[in-house]
Order: sequence, then C-alpha cells, then structure tokens
Amino acid sequence: MNFKEELLKAHSRILPYIHQTPVLTSHLLDEISSAQLFFKCENFQKMGAFKMRGATNAILQLTDEQKAKGVVTHSSGNFAQAIALSTKNLGIKAYIVMPKNAPQVKKEAVLGYGGIVIESESTPIARENKADEVVEETGATFIHPSNDIPVIIGQGTAALELLKSHPDLDIIIAPVGGGGLLGGTALAVHYFGENCKTFAGEPDEANDAFRSLKSGKIESNKTTNTIADGLRTQLGENNFPIIKKYVSAIICVSEAEIIAAMKLIWERLKIVIEPSSAVAFAAVLKDKERFKNKKVGIILSGGNVDLSNLPF
Amino acid sequence: MNFKEELLKAHSRILPYIHQTPVLTSHLLDEISSAQLFFKCENFQKMGAFKMRGATNAILQLTDEQKAKGVVTHSSGNFAQAIALSTKNLGIKAYIVMPKNAPQVKKEAVLGYGGIVIESESTPIARENKADEVVEETGATFIHPSNDIPVIIGQGTAALELLKSHPDLDIIIAPVGGGGLLGGTALAVHYFGENCKTFAGEPDEANDAFRSLKSGKIESNKTTNTIADGLRTQLGENNFPIIKKYVSAIICVSEAEIIAAMKLIWERLKIVIEPSSAVAFAAVLKDKERFKNKKVGIILSGGNVDLSNLPF
Repeated sequence: MNFKEELLKAHSRILPYIHQTPVLTSHLLDEISSAQLFFKCENFQKMGAFKMRGATNAILQLTDEQKAKGVVTHSSGNFAQAIALSTKNLGIKAYIVMPKNAPQVKKEAVLGYGGIVIESESTPIARENKADEVVEETGATFIHPSNDIPVIIGQGTAALELLKSHPDLDIIIAPVGGGGLLGGTALAVHYFGENCKTFAGEPDEANDAFRSLKSGKIESNKTTNTIADGLRTQLGENNFPIIKKYVSAIICVSEAEIIAAMKLIWERLKIVIEPSSAVAFAAVLKDKERFKNKKVGIILSGGNVDLSNLPF
Repeated sequence: MNFKEELLKAHSRILPYIHQTPVLTSHLLDEISSAQLFFKCENFQKMGAFKMRGATNAILQLTDEQKAKGVVTHSSGNFAQAIALSTKNLGIKAYIVMPKNAPQVKKEAVLGYGGIVIESESTPIARENKADEVVEETGATFIHPSNDIPVIIGQGTAALELLKSHPDLDIIIAPVGGGGLLGGTALAVHYFGENCKTFAGEPDEANDAFRSLKSGKIESNKTTNTIADGLRTQLGENNFPIIKKYVSAIICVSEAEIIAAMKLIWERLKIVIEPSSAVAFAAVLKDKERFKNKKVGIILSGGNVDLSNLPF
C-alpha cells in the first residue's frame, strides 16, 4: 500500500464529515516545558475525539452490500461514538460492543447517535468474542478501533493537518493505546514531516506499547488501572510494524503526572480534554531534556470526560 | 463623547495587547435552544477574561506622570488580573484591593503578574475605602473595574469584534455584574449592529441591575450569594445611563440554571468557562421564546475557574 497517497486520499475523503481542528499555543506552557508547543485540538473534533477521522475513513470505503448489513466494533468509548455518528447519517446500522465499566457519558453518547450498544466484560478477549458473535448473527462488517488499516490511515490525518499548518515541527507526540492514532501519526510524520520525529506517551499502568517496542513483539497489558480509559487497549499486528519502524520512543508516565498535565491544560488553555489526551503532554513534561527548545506538536486526542467524576 | 469613534479607536489601541478571540458554534446547543448561537470566547482572552480589554484601554491612556505613580483598583478577581497584566510590561505599579474571600486562584494569578495585592472586607464600601486609602498614600490613579469610561469602551470591543465577524446577529447577550461589559456591549450593538438588540443575564442572587432597570435608579444587591463571583458588584453612575438607554431586557437566572448552563458548555463546546460566563447562556435557555429562531451572540466572559472547587 502506498501510505503517502492513502493519507492524502483519506483526508480528502473525510473532509466533508470532520472538523479541521484548531492548533492552540500558550506562552506559559512553553515556559514550563522549555519547548515550543503546538496543541492539535482533536477534543474539538466531531463527537469530541480524533476517532471520528478513522471511523469515517473506514465507513466511506464500505461496499453497498456491506453498508446494507451494518458494522460492528468494540470500543472503550470514543471509537464507539465515532462509528455511531459516522454511520448515522448514511442510515447504516452500528452494533457497538462496549465494556460494562465504560464511562456512562460515553454509553449515552453512543445511544444518542443511534448506535446499538451491546455490553461485554472488559477484557480484550471478551470484547472480541462478543463482536464475533454479532458478526455471525448479523453479517455486519467488523471494524477494529485501532488495528484496521483505513482506521489507522484516517487517524493519521490529524498529524497530516498539523504538519500542513506547521511544517517545521521537530517532533509530534501522541498518546498510545491500541496504536491506531500512533500508527497513523507515525506514517504522516514519516511521509510529510521534514526531519520530524514521532514520539508517544503511555501510562505506566498500561505500558504494553513501551514493552512491545523493547521486546520486539506485541506485549499484553498486565494492568489497565489507569485514569486514561482510552489507552487501556493493546497494539495490533497491523499497527505494530509501523510503530516499530517509525516511532522514536515511548515515554511512560504515572497517574499523578497524567492528572497534573490534564489540570495544567484545563487551567491554561481553558479547554476540556479527557485524561488520555493529557498523556502526551505529561510525557513532554517528564522527559524535558528530550524536547528542550524543540518545536513539538502534541495531539490532544479527545474531550469526552465525565464532569461528575473529575480527578481534581 | 463620540462613543462610536471611541470604540473604534479603543479597538485599534488595544489590538497589539489582546487576542481577537474565536467564535464557537454547536449544532447541539442550537437544537437545545431553538436559536442559532455564536459564542464569543473571551475565556481565551489574555489572562482569561474580557477584562483585559477595558484594563488595557484605560492603562494606555494614562499620562506619563500617572504611569510613574501607578494605578489602583478593587476587583473580585478578573479585573485585578487584567490590571496586573496590562501594567506589567509597561513597568507600572498596580495596587489591587481584593476581597478576602476571592478565589485563591485569582489572587495567585495577580501576584504572578506582579500585582501588589491589598486585602479588604468584601463589601463594596470596604473595598472602595481601602482603594481611597491607597490613592492617598501613593498618588496612584484609581481605575474603576466597571464604571470607568475607558474601561466600559474597552469591554465593548468584544461585541464590536463579534459584530464585525457576524454582522447579521439579531441579539447580543452578556452577563451583568458591575455593568462595564454590558454598557460597552450595548454601545457596540447600538453603533455597529444592524437591527441588533442587547440583552443581559443576571443571577437571581445578585439582581441589582434587573431591579435598577425596573426602578429607574441604581439599586444595591441585597444578597451576593451566587456562584457567579464576577457578578456580585453593582451598576455605576457612568454605565447605568447607557444600560437604561440601550439594553432591551435583563433576564434573571437561578443558581441551578447557571450551573446547568455551565456544564452544558463544558460538555459540548469542550471549553472551560467560569460560572459568571454561563449566566448569559442560562438566560437564553430560560427565556426560550424570546430567542427562538434568532441569531444570538453570547459573550462568554472568562475562564478563570478554580478546578478544585467545581459545582459538578
């Protein structure tokens, strides 16, 4: 596959259905980090997260026959909403397998967009099995939230936009959960950056990607006890080779570091981001030397947070 | 005074020192309100509130002699920060009389900008007396946070910008506390709107402006027991005649309505606004018939909120 061309095609394809999100800056956050930071605000994306990009790119490439039978996915939240919203206007059925412990605000949003919620246990295996069942029963097409190639390409369009508006970035850093955003970001940086590198932030409490890069094979999470609920998933066989090839390093951060970074962004940028979104900025603050005096693009992945359950 | 010309001059004068803030929209909030809403985001203004406009406009018109002796104001928060920040770079001393019960985050911000904080009791009289003392001791120039004409004109530049980008608005609505923002907004709407009207939202718990419009003279607050801490002050003799002449109506809202409106904005626009900012939107939701199918500009006045003390 010609990833460079696919990224450009994907961006054109999804443009009528997504927002080209703004890029925010802050003198104070630059001072604190000793770097020049450019926050790509996917919290302002439709349905509140970058996932809208990948979902839309995948849905728009279904055949008419596939569209008639609907789609199914499993998701801890934002991809669920993204599939529900992107199928809604096309009249396509969306079956969403959601873990029972997903935030209520995310379940309600899926229902609000007309998605059909099917609950499962929260282990990766349980979610996959439930999705398989739905595929068998309905003939719906399964779209993986982070390991599907059109999804990965779609997620990469956030970094593509960022590089178009800020071509001189030295680094782009994204959070890593299932690896869809990070894989797409790494591709966009490789093909459209000029001497730009890709980094990732990951919670200590769900550090499968960090360990996978180290061991050279896909590792599983031993815990997923992190407030960054969008990052509890693990890498897949399609995005891992991309990440292995194009990501310079993954920086792990503690729960306290995630919460502190989240609070700083709320206070200083005056925007609402979800904990998963704060992980990349937390990594920049943790490993300051690496980013010193660099122009750093930070993907703020989403803003769907339960306001009645904040960590501060 | 030629207010029309003064508004344009003020805008040119302060432009190098302020942000031209973005205007956000939301399909969902339009649906909920049955109107077309345009949120002018002064929470993204420098130091986090529209007050930067008025403060800057006043400071830039001081004589050299006045600049040498410094300025003094009293403020429940945002105007304090605005004076501190706008004097900082010009090397002008700023004495800020703040009520003891002002949010800690606001006191710290003033100190961070190099302002000199002088605490007082929280009654209007106590604050004014303390400011008088400072004037006597230092020879500093007193700048009233909401009743000073250059301040009123400066605050009006937010509505001026909004009308420049959205000339077809039917209504602009702002929150009313001391009346500086509302007075300036009403002037901008009168001189630059096309068949545009000015409305205001005010907390039931500090409804002096509502009662003043009714009685035809400046009324005092009987309580100031509102979460909208920026709106606890009362109208002044310079802004009241403007408000009386040019404001169509003031709509009062309960504390629960303020909090609900604030939460909706955080959840849907993904931005951080302070309770005072939510009052105008709460008024739109309360008095729906009045705004139905209208194009309504809403001034979101600021975003300086204490995240450790949220109402939800």
